Amino acid sequence: MRLWRALALLLLAVCGAAVQATEQATEQWGIHEIELKGPADGNPFVDVQLGARFSDGAQTVEVDGFYDGDGVYRVRFMPPRPGRWTWVTHSNRWPLTNKQGEFTATPPRPGNHGPVGVRHGHHFGHADGTPYKPVGTTMYSWGHRGAALEEQTLKTLAASPFNKVRMLVFPQTAGTDKHPPPLWPYEASSGTPPRNWDYARFNPAFFRHLEQRVGQLRDLGIEADLILYHPYDDKHEWGFDSMTREQDDRYARYLVARLAAYRNVWWSLANEFDFIRTKTDADWAHLGQLLQRIDPYNHLRSIHNGKRIYNQAEGWITHVSMQHGMAAAEASRAVLFREAWRKPVVFDELKYEGKHDRRWAQLTGRQMVHAFWSTTIAGGYGGHSEFIPDADGLIWLAQGVKLRGESPPRLAFLRQILDMAPAEGIDPIDTFEDVFIAGQPGRYYLVYFGQQAPAEWLPKLYLTGLRDGQRFKAEVIDTWAMTVTPVKEPLQFSPQGRYHFVARNAIKLPGRLGIALRLTALDTPAGSGARPALDD
Amino acid sequence: MRLWRALALLLLAVCGAAVQATEQATEQWGIHEIELKGPADGNPFVDVQLGARFSDGAQTVEVDGFYDGDGVYRVRFMPPRPGRWTWVTHSNRWPLTNKQGEFTATPPRPGNHGPVGVRHGHHFGHADGTPYKPVGTTMYSWGHRGAALEEQTLKTLAASPFNKVRMLVFPQTAGTDKHPPPLWPYEASSGTPPRNWDYARFNPAFFRHLEQRVGQLRDLGIEADLILYHPYDDKHEWGFDSMTREQDDRYARYLVARLAAYRNVWWSLANEFDFIRTKTDADWAHLGQLLQRIDPYNHLRSIHNGKRIYNQAEGWITHVSMQHGMAAAEASRAVLFREAWRKPVVFDELKYEGKHDRRWAQLTGRQMVHAFWSTTIAGGYGGHSEFIPDADGLIWLAQGVKLRGESPPRLAFLRQILDMAPAEGIDPIDTFEDVFIAGQPGRYYLVYFGQQAPAEWLPKLYLTGLRDGQRFKAEVIDTWAMTVTPVKEPLQFSPQGRYHFVARNAIKLPGRLGIALRLTALDTPAGSGARPALDD
Repeated sequence: MRLWRALALLLLAVCGAAVQATEQATEQWGIHEIELKGPADGNPFVDVQLGARFSDGAQTVEVDGFYDGDGVYRVRFMPPRPGRWTWVTHSNRWPLTNKQGEFTATPPRPGNHGPVGVRHGHHFGHADGTPYKPVGTTMYSWGHRGAALEEQTLKTLAASPFNKVRMLVFPQTAGTDKHPPPLWPYEASSGTPPRNWDYARFNPAFFRHLEQRVGQLRDLGIEADLILYHPYDDKHEWGFDSMTREQDDRYARYLVARLAAYRNVWWSLANEFDFIRTKTDADWAHLGQLLQRIDPYNHLRSIHNGKRIYNQAEGWITHVSMQHGMAAAEASRAVLFREAWRKPVVFDELKYEGKHDRRWAQLTGRQMVHAFWSTTIAGGYGGHSEFIPDADGLIWLAQGVKLRGESPPRLAFLRQILDMAPAEGIDPIDTFEDVFIAGQPGRYYLVYFGQQAPAEWLPKLYLTGLRDGQRFKAEVIDTWAMTVTPVKEPLQFSPQGRYHFVARNAIKLPGRLGIALRLTALDTPAGSGARPALDD
Repeated sequence: MRLWRALALLLLAVCGAAVQATEQATEQWGIHEIELKGPADGNPFVDVQLGARFSDGAQTVEVDGFYDGDGVYRVRFMPPRPGRWTWVTHSNRWPLTNKQGEFTATPPRPGNHGPVGVRHGHHFGHADGTPYKPVGTTMYSWGHRGAALEEQTLKTLAASPFNKVRMLVFPQTAGTDKHPPPLWPYEASSGTPPRNWDYARFNPAFFRHLEQRVGQLRDLGIEADLILYHPYDDKHEWGFDSMTREQDDRYARYLVARLAAYRNVWWSLANEFDFIRTKTDADWAHLGQLLQRIDPYNHLRSIHNGKRIYNQAEGWITHVSMQHGMAAAEASRAVLFREAWRKPVVFDELKYEGKHDRRWAQLTGRQMVHAFWSTTIAGGYGGHSEFIPDADGLIWLAQGVKLRGESPPRLAFLRQILDMAPAEGIDPIDTFEDVFIAGQPGRYYLVYFGQQAPAEWLPKLYLTGLRDGQRFKAEVIDTWAMTVTPVKEPLQFSPQGRYHFVARNAIKLPGRLGIALRLTALDTPAGSGARPALDD
């Protein structure tokens, strides 16, 4: 009789799984979530395997599910294309396996451009083709501070220029924020947190909260550059930087299962990886390659350095996330990292605006804006944060909450300039000499004079893409005053020497710091006549 | 009977090979050469395999032999240690196999410091521990111009500061030298050279000549940075850049068999590799890894770029051989490549001194000297050449012969400074801010003011390695006038702020371009009290 019963159960499981007929519609690049009831005994985080296969007939995507506590399991899927998708689960437990269903992925709603990937070698774009030009900021612990402050941070972000946020998954004890978080990522095996973590038992509430914040960033059009590990556990009392490889892998898999369906997620393996002395470069490569393998959507992956730069040539790294104390201060420096690795370069930490006694947070607003313009001209991207405590000691770098520096309005202005620039991105035009001109050859140029304050400039462009007689509209940009002043007469260019085209007359400039020129072609370059690049 | 004959021959070969009793002595890191007679029929370059195993009882080295024409085969060995070495050959041909012998490797003679390898992460040293600080130059075709010019070049080199020469193995048609060479590297399969090469038949005379020149460089204390491929075959009429992988491999193996025993050989896979459009990055990696595998002495390996920088992180690359148009002009730029790859960086082409109409050869002597000092302060090394035609159109970059620029005496002066600097090399002290101070923390500093011309400087050093009250001797260096002027009073340093030590009084400076300071510790730092590096 036990045999018959087992057979019946087997048939039920294999053949009789009811197709979930709930007709849910999910927008393309939205989240389609399946909720299942399953075992709550033992340790579901390690005992239960759950996954699902989604297919629209042409494309099949395998995703892992996860345990969300209280006997609830979830599988999340980000449909990469609109249309009819069917799914079927697989699990090592009967109540979770062979569940089936289908749904319609509808076209994306306005503002949903899909996940961001690398475009044109050194730049970024959304899956729908919309260029994405990062103007990022960092608030490590903004999500570990409780509802009131966190909601205020979201309001501030909504009015800010920032379209990317670097944020820690794990809370920090040290450095900029000494407040224990309201939620912990793991359950304590005994005693009171923060002690004796059971690294085999996640705290679902912690991750639900994280997801809520990531989703809110998404709804603001902001990418969430999630930092998996950090060295800011001064006395190593919390220990999230000291897990075993098995525990690290479980953490990465749990993050991917929960969060990869959020289209705005990026994976930043670490902040200041080299200060986390409990992991080797081989450990980081292992983790990066694991993410590359298990993330069904291939979200962007990077690793941010302290003093020692990681080998950014490794294949799992999609773009360079750079801390550097002085490279971003000059385009001719910043461009060298782009040349070294031929990947997008984001100077996520180019020092911070502030008056800290530490030199990594002593930039004036002007210096911060200059660094952003320098990295732009270098064909890369800057990253903002500030260390300007308010009366309560809150600082943007740690808690978020409110911006107090002088740079954000100017970064908003820069973002407007970037948004109007060619979709292919801004590339340095000629890196053999000092770099101060970038754009797209023959079509669009940004000339940035930076720390110089010339009273005039005789327009001189490297020849690639230019035609004899070609005309350009010129506008003088004051990067600090946030003004764009058209030059009355169009510029007309003709060849000079082996390498250049020049205009006839010099342009008058304000003689101030932080002045740029924007040149936009008035003639569409014909197919012929445009100059090719030279080897020498 | 044929069986008996074969057996007798076998026994003779296996057991009865006469030990070569010729008591040759070869100095350590010299060349021990074995000459053997063998078959001259067929194509010995491809039909005959020959190698030998050298052993001193503790260490065994396998080397390949090579065919030198006229039925003569040679095996060359560079003994890595003094003492008694025995050897035995192996071949697929009876007359060449199982030959045995022994010799004594004597201690190296004065001036022989052994091959150069990487030391202290970013620097170089000879096998005997002597530091090697490259002050290199480039003369692509100096070895393809006939005896009279080549002997003159050697005389010029003997009186020059240069201790490394970049030179092409294959002749060039184009660019800087249009003279066909007296010797060709391959035999023509039909017709008159340069046509219809038989890439399976080397011309031994060509390689004997190359070896002669490499040996003469060695005797002058000059490293030979041999360039295996180049793109200077404008009409692709000679074709050495268009061989098959099999032909490329045979070429690399022949070079190693003939030349690896020369202690002063470096392997530079290519000049301007990216302009050689007949090879992919995978081809270069293959060749580099092949050299790494087959060179018994692990000579230095690099690949030099045109516009696109090769992935210098690849494991077979021992050091960065860089062409860059503007990185070497500022230490704060040049240092970034060092940080990117954590290998020695040699700016082998930082533009040339000259008045060419091409911008890669328009440096003034002052600019060349400035670039060398900048790369030095960046913890790297510069590379010289010049494009200043004489009455016959000869230029150093192509033919060598005579130096005409203003930089060489100043580079000799720099080399003196380098030779007196710490054996560990000159490292930038603090790369978080603009880089203009380098040396060894707490012991030795070079401060280079470059394009600034300050009238005084208040000594301020990053804290690492310094002790409160420590005293330094100071000397003002004029890098152009080649003078060293002691500052009368020693400097005494005390801490200031979180990051620095300062002296009490400013040092008066000449207010000219190209001024440096040398600070040498007068107090030996005690074990305790010296400041450790900070993370922030």
